[in-house]
Amino acid sequence: MSLRPELTHASVPLIEEVEVVDELGRPRPAWLPGERPLTVYLDKRELVTLMTLGGAPEHLVLGYLRNQRLVDSIEEIAAIQVDWETESAAVTTRSGVDRIEERTARRVVTTGCGQGTVYGSLLDEIDGVRLPGDAMLDQATLYAIIDTIRLQQSVYKQAGSVHGCALFQGSELLIFIEDVGRHNAVDAIAGRMWLEDMSGADKVFYTTGRLTSEMVIKAAQMGIPFLLSRSGVTQMGYQMAQRVGITLFARCTGKHFLLYTGRERFRHAQPTPLTAEGAPA
Amino acid sequence: MSLRPELTHASVPLIEEVEVVDELGRPRPAWLPGERPLTVYLDKRELVTLMTLGGAPEHLVLGYLRNQRLVDSIEEIAAIQVDWETESAAVTTRSGVDRIEERTARRVVTTGCGQGTVYGSLLDEIDGVRLPGDAMLDQATLYAIIDTIRLQQSVYKQAGSVHGCALFQGSELLIFIEDVGRHNAVDAIAGRMWLEDMSGADKVFYTTGRLTSEMVIKAAQMGIPFLLSRSGVTQMGYQMAQRVGITLFARCTGKHFLLYTGRERFRHAQPTPLTAEGAPA
Repeated sequence: MSLRPELTHASVPLIEEVEVVDELGRPRPAWLPGERPLTVYLDKRELVTLMTLGGAPEHLVLGYLRNQRLVDSIEEIAAIQVDWETESAAVTTRSGVDRIEERTARRVVTTGCGQGTVYGSLLDEIDGVRLPGDAMLDQATLYAIIDTIRLQQSVYKQAGSVHGCALFQGSELLIFIEDVGRHNAVDAIAGRMWLEDMSGADKVFYTTGRLTSEMVIKAAQMGIPFLLSRSGVTQMGYQMAQRVGITLFARCTGKHFLLYTGRERFRHAQPTPLTAEGAPA
Repeated sequence: MSLRPELTHASVPLIEEVEVVDELGRPRPAWLPGERPLTVYLDKRELVTLMTLGGAPEHLVLGYLRNQRLVDSIEEIAAIQVDWETESAAVTTRSGVDRIEERTARRVVTTGCGQGTVYGSLLDEIDGVRLPGDAMLDQATLYAIIDTIRLQQSVYKQAGSVHGCALFQGSELLIFIEDVGRHNAVDAIAGRMWLEDMSGADKVFYTTGRLTSEMVIKAAQMGIPFLLSRSGVTQMGYQMAQRVGITLFARCTGKHFLLYTGRERFRHAQPTPLTAEGAPA
């Protein structure tokens, strides 16, 4: 592998216990997922403050730089130093960032879940994405993925209020990341893929969160042909999925799922039933 | 009431039907909530593109301007014209915005659910918030609120993938707004409150979404002493609630809820039970 940045491995407790009162007036413990500010400095220039669970801060910062198109190549980054004491992530590049003013000034804001900021022009880029047409996913693998997620240890199970994202190769879980924001979780996966030079072409991306336009765009940018969600899809998430030709499943729980777009890449466990008229449904 | 802006009443379909395929290979309909870009221009200056369901675009824009502290007073706004054809909201002020460069340049990004942008320094402001100490909520009213939400007609019931926010006075529902982003829904309520010069002091704010730091901050900025969620709380949401002294309930469903902070404003339906040691629990 070519030149890679030096990364800290900063860790921080992900869950806090507090005392609450229930409906009968009884005190009882409750668990909160961490939510911490992490201010990102790019060559000492303050860039953004991300609110994060804190499970994978270095990968989150890498993915943020990548998905915002602030840095073109991983080789340009010399180091990322995360320090929870100062709630900061210092990114050092090897030779500065080209056109940094322009990159941080031009802002297209996409807001699937609020007011998310994306620097640069994502929509233009999307039309250049080519996802592999010959990738296939069968129903047994899809069920294995859903089951693996169900059994996964998670902050969510104890504390709730976080979203999980996962990267699979076939039914093998490669990466599982939770964060208070869906965008952070997907950015952290993108960061890790960038760092390890992983291709998205043979991967499946899973998220517990809703598939808004921004989530679909990010999956497509990672070159991943399959996108699964336990939750639903918005209108523009659907339109983006059609536009980039991604295979999108939502409402995936147990043995249930709905296949929204990109049907040609999915192999049903049984032949497509006939309709009452005798034509394939 | 003093000078108010002229507003369009732009409407747009909130739900789209599409055909999907289920786990048995059967085609079936599914419903998607709308998600549309709405680019906000402040005196012809492009400000931001919000992705929204589109249920209350004028109120959303008002609340966005308010919560980002881009405009100080509602009287300064002459008109908001939303046009779905061009996906734009044109805000016209009566006499320009003071220090507009500075206001839009300084950016504190808070990201409860991703990478949300808040212009200006929210945290400084929070410490100036004073919520009424004598406001009280009793358990019967809390249950009435939860039940009203349960019975409310909603995009969520048909299409899922949206968050709802509501404003109550006692058990009376005053405003109910859904959007693809929690932040948009709360901004739309803030916009309507601003427009109608409503005080938050005797109100209850309800949201289906998680209570991250940003949601707590926004409720406090509206001057609302009670914050309810069907979902959970993050660590910083909890810390912010303690800091501003808001009364925060989460996991509100049916007859269940947890009271996290600001217990002094809540009247339980029955006396606090004694612990095994005989001391009040």
